[in-house]
Amino acid sequence: MAHMKWWGWGDESTRFTHEDKPALAEFVLEKIDIDCFAPSPPLPAFEDLDLAEPVAARVLLADLTAAVGFDHVTQEPMERVVHCYGKSIRDLVRLRGNDLGRLPDVIVYPGSEDEVTAVLAVALSHDAVLIPFGGGTNISGSLEAPRRETRPVISLDMSRMNSVIEIDVASRTARVQAGILGPELEARLNAQGWTIGHFPDSFNHSTLGGWIATRSSGMQSDKYGDIADLTRGVRVVTPNGLVDIRPVPSTSTGPSVREMILGSEGRLGVITEATVQVHRVPAQRSILGYLFPSFTAGLAAMQEIAESDASPSVTRISDANETQFSFATKKPGGFKDTAQSAALKIFLTKRKGFVLENMCLSFIGFEGSADHVKINKKLVGDIVSSHGGLCVGSGPGEMYDQKKFDTPYIRDFLLDRGGLADVSETSAPWSRLAGLYDGARQAVMGAFDELGVKGFVMSHLSHSYHSGACLYFTFAFKAAPGREPLEQYDVVKSALQQSFVDLGATLSHHHAVGVEHRAWLSQDISEAGVAMVRALFDGVDPGQNLNPGKILPDPDVDLSQSNGHAARVASTQPGAGTSVTS
Amino acid sequence: MAHMKWWGWGDESTRFTHEDKPALAEFVLEKIDIDCFAPSPPLPAFEDLDLAEPVAARVLLADLTAAVGFDHVTQEPMERVVHCYGKSIRDLVRLRGNDLGRLPDVIVYPGSEDEVTAVLAVALSHDAVLIPFGGGTNISGSLEAPRRETRPVISLDMSRMNSVIEIDVASRTARVQAGILGPELEARLNAQGWTIGHFPDSFNHSTLGGWIATRSSGMQSDKYGDIADLTRGVRVVTPNGLVDIRPVPSTSTGPSVREMILGSEGRLGVITEATVQVHRVPAQRSILGYLFPSFTAGLAAMQEIAESDASPSVTRISDANETQFSFATKKPGGFKDTAQSAALKIFLTKRKGFVLENMCLSFIGFEGSADHVKINKKLVGDIVSSHGGLCVGSGPGEMYDQKKFDTPYIRDFLLDRGGLADVSETSAPWSRLAGLYDGARQAVMGAFDELGVKGFVMSHLSHSYHSGACLYFTFAFKAAPGREPLEQYDVVKSALQQSFVDLGATLSHHHAVGVEHRAWLSQDISEAGVAMVRALFDGVDPGQNLNPGKILPDPDVDLSQSNGHAARVASTQPGAGTSVTS
Repeated sequence: MAHMKWWGWGDESTRFTHEDKPALAEFVLEKIDIDCFAPSPPLPAFEDLDLAEPVAARVLLADLTAAVGFDHVTQEPMERVVHCYGKSIRDLVRLRGNDLGRLPDVIVYPGSEDEVTAVLAVALSHDAVLIPFGGGTNISGSLEAPRRETRPVISLDMSRMNSVIEIDVASRTARVQAGILGPELEARLNAQGWTIGHFPDSFNHSTLGGWIATRSSGMQSDKYGDIADLTRGVRVVTPNGLVDIRPVPSTSTGPSVREMILGSEGRLGVITEATVQVHRVPAQRSILGYLFPSFTAGLAAMQEIAESDASPSVTRISDANETQFSFATKKPGGFKDTAQSAALKIFLTKRKGFVLENMCLSFIGFEGSADHVKINKKLVGDIVSSHGGLCVGSGPGEMYDQKKFDTPYIRDFLLDRGGLADVSETSAPWSRLAGLYDGARQAVMGAFDELGVKGFVMSHLSHSYHSGACLYFTFAFKAAPGREPLEQYDVVKSALQQSFVDLGATLSHHHAVGVEHRAWLSQDISEAGVAMVRALFDGVDPGQNLNPGKILPDPDVDLSQSNGHAARVASTQPGAGTSVTS
Repeated sequence: MAHMKWWGWGDESTRFTHEDKPALAEFVLEKIDIDCFAPSPPLPAFEDLDLAEPVAARVLLADLTAAVGFDHVTQEPMERVVHCYGKSIRDLVRLRGNDLGRLPDVIVYPGSEDEVTAVLAVALSHDAVLIPFGGGTNISGSLEAPRRETRPVISLDMSRMNSVIEIDVASRTARVQAGILGPELEARLNAQGWTIGHFPDSFNHSTLGGWIATRSSGMQSDKYGDIADLTRGVRVVTPNGLVDIRPVPSTSTGPSVREMILGSEGRLGVITEATVQVHRVPAQRSILGYLFPSFTAGLAAMQEIAESDASPSVTRISDANETQFSFATKKPGGFKDTAQSAALKIFLTKRKGFVLENMCLSFIGFEGSADHVKINKKLVGDIVSSHGGLCVGSGPGEMYDQKKFDTPYIRDFLLDRGGLADVSETSAPWSRLAGLYDGARQAVMGAFDELGVKGFVMSHLSHSYHSGACLYFTFAFKAAPGREPLEQYDVVKSALQQSFVDLGATLSHHHAVGVEHRAWLSQDISEAGVAMVRALFDGVDPGQNLNPGKILPDPDVDLSQSNGHAARVASTQPGAGTSVTS
């Protein structure tokens, strides 16, 4: 299985371009002052990178080779670079800027749970650091070794462990090895009439083990649940032996070990397999588009749908900015022309009273029998209408469904042109979502002002629950000259994250903690909550050999600035950790 | 708020009797050889109990008084006895037998979170043991101090902390103090049009904090979820300070601290309040009765319903034994006459091909709008029919709904007459339920044979999930003469619990671990899983001051007999701990 390109997201064969999207260049120029037509600088050459010499001792390499075989241990430069980071915007900037951080010294590809056990034993006996690696899509810094790590660093690539071991038809679960990629898993399930129902944006390049280790959530979570709901049983190689949690539907065995593994980011051990819920591929699957006069109206509709007897598979509404961005990325033909057609515009403005710049696009998905889909469309349609919205058919939904995994490529497109784009997402109770939306936008706009840059921020709600929902923010700006781009990025990112915890939301709904979000953990789950996580990690891994530095705040390197909005993750900035002052 | 009677379940004013149930006495005589008409021995007199002197030092009492006020610290004998155990059959036998175990030395009633914090600080500074106490209904031994505990033991009764602090209408959550009893909570919610949707058998006498601390599940869990799903935010006073988990709908903040608190049984701290999901009282609520030709057919129907587009609030099916017991407890008139009427019998046997002794009674609940209820009744009805079942209307369901909280009183009725009755429940994947049902029954019958007693075991399925369900077993027998009743009970209980873990199920679906189930924890969640829980407890409470002895296996007192089926929890037997040999 080929890894993603070392310098950016996804396959070499796929690139985002404005050329087939007539309205995009103007939109980008207007919003963030970037000229899509300007020649983009050449991509960095791999040969120009400065790779530190690996520090692994011969005896360590020999022991690792004994554990997994000669063919599955490597120190090749490309492998080391591919495994040094995830794919956050910080990672992309650092890779392009020849800042490789603390490269792993050796990459190991185990082929079985026994081999994982052997590798962990080797790592512990040599006091090495072990970092599990799935698809490498993480955007929270969960995959990098601490910059100042002096022990040997082993990246444990799980890609060989990609089997669907068995499907329990009666229980509707599949036992699957952790290293399987989303498309592999879905294809093997589909072949027998099943679906995993878990489709995060990273789906094409992320793994089951990665989903579990980061508490991932997918686009149809309203129906199928988050990965925490889908994962029933799990097997984890730990310093104390194999954790084997049975795939029971619910249990009362004290504090949930299953829920300790979920989100553990490699700090408790290596997830080797899981038993996950699967569903029969539904008879019907449909995603309808809706337009709302405002984000407020759309939020109110989603809130009501979540309480109603309706059970949609997807509930998503973009704010006005994201709606406009969505229209700007449309290719000729199709929905854009419909939605922006003169006749529709007149209908929306004259008959429905819409102000077009406030209009919000929504997608709501339905799955099940034909009757179920029909009944639910009616239930949802009535609620949408009562909030001033209207259905615009299945065209936009189909388009959204087809291009949903392409979004991450845009970051590289913008980065080629000096633009920094990133995402931060959170969840909050319904009662707080409107205030969160306003406050988070203000925080980002304030950060743009502080930097003196022209920036853009857009948002959508997705993943509805009984008591609240996820808000997902995307921001982009052209870095100002004369200041490190990542320093500028930190100002915006920190302001956004701080607004989340200040406004009663969580630091992340499904992107994990890693090093990017750890500075906010104690504000989110309280100091005493952090102490519980620390007790767990320290007890299971007293030597800090398992992916150290992730999740728990590190007072030595996380600066919490006294002026409030900019808690920086200093350790991940180039050169940080040597000159930090508070 | 009055506590339950010291010697048994529930209120003094409520007692179970056979006198208004014409068929019951014959049934009991036939099944377990107990004569309901024989005079029952007098209840023990409280004055005859032997209470050890409390060991709390004056300075500890003075500090506790300073923490909560003079009126809220007591060492009264009745208070000490009420707080010494929960209400397991073992507890009832011990109480009636004047075996009070390690009585608490002092009972403290805090009135606020600050007072809880103060009490915990006092307990730690005096190296005392602190055991939180909700309604006292626990049947897994979670409330008793270790028999050999030499430190002062404080029982922290949460009953004064019983407020509904606020209802977040938009988010459909209620912030509630942990000491509130089920009926108080539901009444206050109902008054504003809401329901908690959580109705465990213990509902009338158990508290929100107790539900959370033990991972409780209620009868309408199919719709509302288990307490783990309902609980969004939680506040817990711990040795490291206040754990304050925000009531967000879903989050990606590493290993879930919320899920560490759930099921923690007081070992991590004292739960002071929680923010729980609430729902609008549904427009319609209906529980229908169904009859199936066999338990196998009923299981298959429940499995199919769980995968279908239907979303019932309750799915429950009794096996043939429980169905017969249910018929035997009916009062004159009503459903029993219907179901056993000559005409129905003829219809069932001649037209439907039922063998009456294999017939199984099922209840399925529906809640929501009139349309929703109607649609779901149709979906469920079709599935029931396809498995040979038929609907017998709303009469049995209404009767079940009315008497559902009275079941625990039967244990005292039988105990008065020398009968030992208890329950054990578990959950497993759908594919394992049939084997589990057979194997668990065989284990219990084998234990009866080993003891040479005439016993009865019955079971029902409840709490359906996508991938499995809960199986709930009730067993009863008349203790044989010449051997300690609890020793005999242990043979049966241990055989049943061992069958659970041997057959791929969990040690408990919703009754917690306590001391009763801890001997099976490592077989259930694996040794390395237990090590994680131990790391958490040891890190948070290094002095073992917080409800010590619960959840984690104790090799000193848990005997795992080499012959397989009887792992005994020796520490809870009278006199055990002094003469245990392996």
